[in-house]
Amino acid sequence: MTVNSKSVSLVLRLWFLLHRTRDVVRRCEDQVFVEYGLTTEQYAVLSVMKSLGSPLRVIDLARGLEREPNSVSMMVDRMVKAGLVRRSRDRGDRRTVYLDITNKGENALKLAVPAGLEFVQEILSPLSDEDRRTLITLLEMVRYKALEYLKLGVNVEEMMRNEITSQAGLGKRLIQYISTSTPEAKRQGGKKRKTT
Amino acid sequence: MTVNSKSVSLVLRLWFLLHRTRDVVRRCEDQVFVEYGLTTEQYAVLSVMKSLGSPLRVIDLARGLEREPNSVSMMVDRMVKAGLVRRSRDRGDRRTVYLDITNKGENALKLAVPAGLEFVQEILSPLSDEDRRTLITLLEMVRYKALEYLKLGVNVEEMMRNEITSQAGLGKRLIQYISTSTPEAKRQGGKKRKTT
Repeated sequence: MTVNSKSVSLVLRLWFLLHRTRDVVRRCEDQVFVEYGLTTEQYAVLSVMKSLGSPLRVIDLARGLEREPNSVSMMVDRMVKAGLVRRSRDRGDRRTVYLDITNKGENALKLAVPAGLEFVQEILSPLSDEDRRTLITLLEMVRYKALEYLKLGVNVEEMMRNEITSQAGLGKRLIQYISTSTPEAKRQGGKKRKTT
Repeated sequence: MTVNSKSVSLVLRLWFLLHRTRDVVRRCEDQVFVEYGLTTEQYAVLSVMKSLGSPLRVIDLARGLEREPNSVSMMVDRMVKAGLVRRSRDRGDRRTVYLDITNKGENALKLAVPAGLEFVQEILSPLSDEDRRTLITLLEMVRYKALEYLKLGVNVEEMMRNEITSQAGLGKRLIQYISTSTPEAKRQGGKKRKTT
């Protein structure tokens, strides 16, 4: 291995910052979401459920969160106990278990989404839109390479393309979500069963 | 709150990427370090101990890791059980407990450091040095803002200035560490007691 002191310092600084930036942002998020009775993890689960549309299966939720189904399953157990999420079986196929957001979960999310958005807008306020686009491009490059490194046996390019599309959709859905006012209306809208 | 759809999408995409990039990098690291019998967390503890110079106190280790002393203390308990770290008392002041790396910890770290460096160089290989500097600058801006948001009662600017200095030192020390070959020589060098 070639060891070039200057280049190594740069790489180490960047490695360190990738972790530390996320760590400190996570600590802020914990502060934000605890106000609404949610951990950051629970917030992530609920907002992915909301953006993908629930009811949905654990496997789809895990894919949306980019996590192992096993660890998501344990998280869901805790959220069922906390009354934020409920399980139900499909009428057509009784073996398939679906997850849905409860009224309690809906109410917490309803308040947490605008708070989360406000927080992230504040955190990213020092960056211009151009800075943001640059940061997205550079992080995508690192993430792409890391996904390749993991050798998950998936088509990384296709996966990332789908994600960009679903992210654009998520933005729209969240804005819609914030704009509507009654939790009742949201629950009606969230009930659609995915047919895929 | 003003909701501008285009700007919100950009902010959400960036938020998402900050988390997901670090998550996938962490999964890669887990793969890298498990080969040397270490979790990524244990690797982080050992390399911070190495870079700050051990023996050192839990409070100093926690500061180096930017984590709560309580959670670091629990991590250290597990590492003591795993034989990677040992506790000792200061001869002058018996109340103060110091942590030191064991031979087993030294040997694991000795192999893991070059592997970690090789990994991070590969992951960051799509980025030019200029890209890396840009990414560092942008992440620093986000991190600075997040640290301010946390209101830790510390002087954020000073903290970050110290960090850059210690990071530069860390780079030098790691390169030195890789270049030296005998664990024996390293142990001798690592024994110096910090007097601050």
